[in-house]
Amino acid sequence: MQDVPALRSLFEQYLADNLIDKEPKALYEPFNYIMKMGGKRMRPVMALLACQLFDVDAEAALPAALSVEIFHNFSLVHDDIMDEADIRRGQATVHKKYGLNSGILSGDVMLIYAYDFLRQTSRAEAIPELVNTLSQVAIRVCEGQQYDVDFEVRPSVSLDEYLLMIEMKTAALLAGSLKMGALSAGANERDQLHLSAFGRLPGIAFHIQDDYLDTFGAPNKVGKRPGGDIVQNKKTCLYIRALEVGNDAQRAALQKWYSEPSSNEAEKVKSVTAIFTALGIPEYIKTLRNEYQQRAYEHLAKVSVDKDAKAALYGLAESLLVREL
Amino acid sequence: MQDVPALRSLFEQYLADNLIDKEPKALYEPFNYIMKMGGKRMRPVMALLACQLFDVDAEAALPAALSVEIFHNFSLVHDDIMDEADIRRGQATVHKKYGLNSGILSGDVMLIYAYDFLRQTSRAEAIPELVNTLSQVAIRVCEGQQYDVDFEVRPSVSLDEYLLMIEMKTAALLAGSLKMGALSAGANERDQLHLSAFGRLPGIAFHIQDDYLDTFGAPNKVGKRPGGDIVQNKKTCLYIRALEVGNDAQRAALQKWYSEPSSNEAEKVKSVTAIFTALGIPEYIKTLRNEYQQRAYEHLAKVSVDKDAKAALYGLAESLLVREL
Repeated sequence: MQDVPALRSLFEQYLADNLIDKEPKALYEPFNYIMKMGGKRMRPVMALLACQLFDVDAEAALPAALSVEIFHNFSLVHDDIMDEADIRRGQATVHKKYGLNSGILSGDVMLIYAYDFLRQTSRAEAIPELVNTLSQVAIRVCEGQQYDVDFEVRPSVSLDEYLLMIEMKTAALLAGSLKMGALSAGANERDQLHLSAFGRLPGIAFHIQDDYLDTFGAPNKVGKRPGGDIVQNKKTCLYIRALEVGNDAQRAALQKWYSEPSSNEAEKVKSVTAIFTALGIPEYIKTLRNEYQQRAYEHLAKVSVDKDAKAALYGLAESLLVREL
Repeated sequence: MQDVPALRSLFEQYLADNLIDKEPKALYEPFNYIMKMGGKRMRPVMALLACQLFDVDAEAALPAALSVEIFHNFSLVHDDIMDEADIRRGQATVHKKYGLNSGILSGDVMLIYAYDFLRQTSRAEAIPELVNTLSQVAIRVCEGQQYDVDFEVRPSVSLDEYLLMIEMKTAALLAGSLKMGALSAGANERDQLHLSAFGRLPGIAFHIQDDYLDTFGAPNKVGKRPGGDIVQNKKTCLYIRALEVGNDAQRAALQKWYSEPSSNEAEKVKSVTAIFTALGIPEYIKTLRNEYQQRAYEHLAKVSVDKDAKAALYGLAESLLVREL
């Protein structure tokens, strides 16, 4: 069993060995540029951890790990175009550095390579289901991205709809990474399902927590002044829940604050936070996060392998989530 | 054996049965919009023809046929963005009708479905190689598109490089359509190779012929005044070959004509055509086209099935190519 730092190194080496060094340069340079930008390599590490959970060397899941990391980076390249984002991980985004057309076309070829690398999987009989899993995850990610766009302009969105969007846009790929690692190891279907569920839930819990901390986090812990989301009129879990449970006056006040640029940001943050607090939103959201976290651990407990082997996956989930909100 | 019109109907019905009717609408509406726009359905018909060549019902290749048609339309959606094209088959392009972001994201989900539909293939043992063929073709198409972009700004491009770009950008998918049809039928590797080669060559021949006819076609046959490519400074086979074989004065004259917007279009067409003719370009290009066509037929002849069964594929190639240039 290799630990997380060892698995990360293993993945970095495999990635370096598989960077695409061929013509046309203008197609593959942006591909390599974003792949080398780093990041925590959360998804590939999850695939490798899932594989060795079943007493199979992590190496067996390297193609799946590379596939999910390429897919993740493909989605960043195209999302950054759609969001008109200039900076990613402190560097210029692909389309900012290489132009719109290169962003589109390099993203396309990355999506194709996410499929193509799966052919390197040593357990050949797993390949069709790996391809299928990648497709189902990829479809969910695209649908989630579309819902995110739709929700920006829709007058009302329920918390359930919002959480489903988060599940599709971000948690599905975390779940898929674990499933593809398990598939690479030949795990049974029941274990694949519990692992997928385990992977999905902390992704959602993390997002809920992120929304919570932005408004209610202690500044010394979070490292920034609370209320950034409120200033930016971001439709977070807190805001959506408040619209669901608030009375007419509270809803009208929230919608007014969120419909115009505020001349007094401090006053806006204070007023909106007061409405959230009056409605019991922080407690509700804390409980919601804890429920997702709890259910995740229940699924992990049901995976039919030795308890010790799961420690690294518990650890990874714990590292995402603050113990006490 | 079904004829081409019957196969086209078969495909249209399968497509209609498989249009994606689910949420989010904003993602799938552009997908269905371009798929329903029509076109000749050349690629799916080729896949179906290739399948029944091996005495297997064309129905067996319907998933492969749908896959190549979706892939083709995905590439049109993203290419139209890159080319800033407003009109496609007489209708608004996807990004023009639905916006840039929908064009990118719907294109992405189409590429994923091009893979996903292959799972419906009844010969399950063919699926891994179908997926692999789609990936290899898709990579070539992206590379070809990148070379096309690169060549626009490169000071000089050889005819060989230009023809390779054409092979990648358009002929590879025609070849892949035949190969995927043959794979769906369980054809042997040798037959797959000859069919691929057969599919690739008329695609290139057609492109060469298109360049030729634009300048040297009889207006009553071509249906437009000759010289449109010259007026638009398009770097066709004729132009590239002329730069390769012309003397310094001829090259300088050509480059001058192509470097500035012309105030007198008729004079420009006349002068450039005269240089092409003086260099023997029309004869060279005619011979080149005929060679590609001839080699295509040689490959088709080598496919190990009854000669009559190949008639429809001969017919399809013939319908692309003018008999006498």
